[in-house]
Amino acid sequence: MQNAKLDFMGLLAFDLGGTKLATVFFNSEGQILFKEIAEVRKSKGGDVGALICNNITSLMEVLSLRGDKIESIGICVPGIYHEKEGTVWAPNIPGWYEYPLMREIVKVAGEIPVKIDSDRACCMLGEVWKGNAKNSKDAIFFTVGTGIGAGILINSQILRGTHDIAGAIGWMALQTPFLEQYSDCGFLEEFASGEGIAKLARKYISGKKNYSGKLKDISFEEITSRDVFSAYESGDKIAEKVINKCIELWGMATANLVSLFNPEKIIFGGGIFGPAIPLIPKIKEEASKWAQPISIKQVSFEPSGLGTDAGVFGAGFLALKNLKQ
Amino acid sequence: MQNAKLDFMGLLAFDLGGTKLATVFFNSEGQILFKEIAEVRKSKGGDVGALICNNITSLMEVLSLRGDKIESIGICVPGIYHEKEGTVWAPNIPGWYEYPLMREIVKVAGEIPVKIDSDRACCMLGEVWKGNAKNSKDAIFFTVGTGIGAGILINSQILRGTHDIAGAIGWMALQTPFLEQYSDCGFLEEFASGEGIAKLARKYISGKKNYSGKLKDISFEEITSRDVFSAYESGDKIAEKVINKCIELWGMATANLVSLFNPEKIIFGGGIFGPAIPLIPKIKEEASKWAQPISIKQVSFEPSGLGTDAGVFGAGFLALKNLKQ
Repeated sequence: MQNAKLDFMGLLAFDLGGTKLATVFFNSEGQILFKEIAEVRKSKGGDVGALICNNITSLMEVLSLRGDKIESIGICVPGIYHEKEGTVWAPNIPGWYEYPLMREIVKVAGEIPVKIDSDRACCMLGEVWKGNAKNSKDAIFFTVGTGIGAGILINSQILRGTHDIAGAIGWMALQTPFLEQYSDCGFLEEFASGEGIAKLARKYISGKKNYSGKLKDISFEEITSRDVFSAYESGDKIAEKVINKCIELWGMATANLVSLFNPEKIIFGGGIFGPAIPLIPKIKEEASKWAQPISIKQVSFEPSGLGTDAGVFGAGFLALKNLKQ
Repeated sequence: MQNAKLDFMGLLAFDLGGTKLATVFFNSEGQILFKEIAEVRKSKGGDVGALICNNITSLMEVLSLRGDKIESIGICVPGIYHEKEGTVWAPNIPGWYEYPLMREIVKVAGEIPVKIDSDRACCMLGEVWKGNAKNSKDAIFFTVGTGIGAGILINSQILRGTHDIAGAIGWMALQTPFLEQYSDCGFLEEFASGEGIAKLARKYISGKKNYSGKLKDISFEEITSRDVFSAYESGDKIAEKVINKCIELWGMATANLVSLFNPEKIIFGGGIFGPAIPLIPKIKEEASKWAQPISIKQVSFEPSGLGTDAGVFGAGFLALKNLKQ
């Protein structure tokens, strides 16, 4: 804990991923006063909940010694948050199907206000607070990592849908006819997610006899999207074919967002943006072919301004907004 | 004018189309006290504005004789309404590019509150007030006529976008690769609008030598979507191919709406629904293949409950909501 003077309110933010928990204590200006990363890999669901609760309790103790306190708590979860029920569905945390996270947190937080939301929602809010969507009221965070999702901001509010699962853009249909293989995770995710990129590269390599490019050095089953990007940068033809397909699909998907939502910004984030950031102008070029022609001129396509910190900043902003309401 | 007793407020609603102006006087319960349809075909833009203003003035006079009055005005326009500027873009009314409709109406309406919105927004609101989306907070009106659009309701508010042109679903991209022919009106509209249906039928007929089906009796250039539906109902193979393509595309487009918005309802309206109403179960079947699998179970697909009156009911509801605010 740094010895910084708190501004006037202390915001405790958590970003829970499948493998780690980031705990950050912000002041209301968004300055980081304290930051800690803990491993959660292979933890049981209950242990993960307990870890968050312990962090709250020990921080409360430390702060009370100084006469300071946590004024609001925000939590970013890797899945869906059901607001009415206070429960989380997070496929990568064992046992978190309808995990009653709000109930567990309130047990230790007491009177401190608590707000929870999905990672895609938090990333969008983080960009509004301290990233590349400052002052935007209508923006979309398009996140491509293992999966694909969209955090959608409409008139400064996150779009939730009738049962909290809006923004499931990994399921976007972009190519007839339907094939059974799209049933597991959706058409767009099948081709243009991190896993999809690796899978498509393997498929193209299998189909090409005498392939002697960069990806040949990697054991076939172990090819990752990162390998594909690295091969793409050195001009490998297979990698080029895979990435060009992704540019086309990301372009069509974001074109559809532009036509439907008429947003100010689309922010590209997640592990793939990352290495795909230099492709954003090409994605916009593809989107410009398809989208409503006035809307596409009114939108800017930008990378995340916060990278892997977008979620925890969003959790901090959740906490701040909750306090102001 | 019927001699009905006004409930406690009188709502004057206009539904302006490319060819007609409907003027309806509602009470706050949504009962129609007065209804009139006027032709506007080939009218100049200024004349159309003057017609609405005259109707307001004469109704004010008639009502004042009875001691009644117009308490609020709502107007549904066939295009885009720019809320901040008070202007309308309506491609089918000559000269309505940035037509200052609000300014013109306020000249005669004086203190009476006035609200204007696009036809897709009004149709959605009409269904909420008196149609098949009563009590829905998150619903989408999917309208297919000459063009294709979506009126999108989120937490009881119409989605406007940053410059009022949200819901332009006619531009939805659903099939690689991009072809130049999609540039005029968008991919979905190119194939699955009223005009698209007729065009696709002509294309398939041209490609089939010895075609002797029902559509052969109609002069090639004059085939309309209505002819295609009529041929479909009598088992014509070309018409079947066209309509099956539409079912696929409408299914994919609505699947994308379901995955992105997680709505309670999708309401099908416009001239094509109409004859395409019996296809709604097949459209849902197609959408179910593509959409986020939980969201698609939470949504119902329904025809408009108001048909061609959806827009004017929406204008009435605009007027009512404006008064209550």
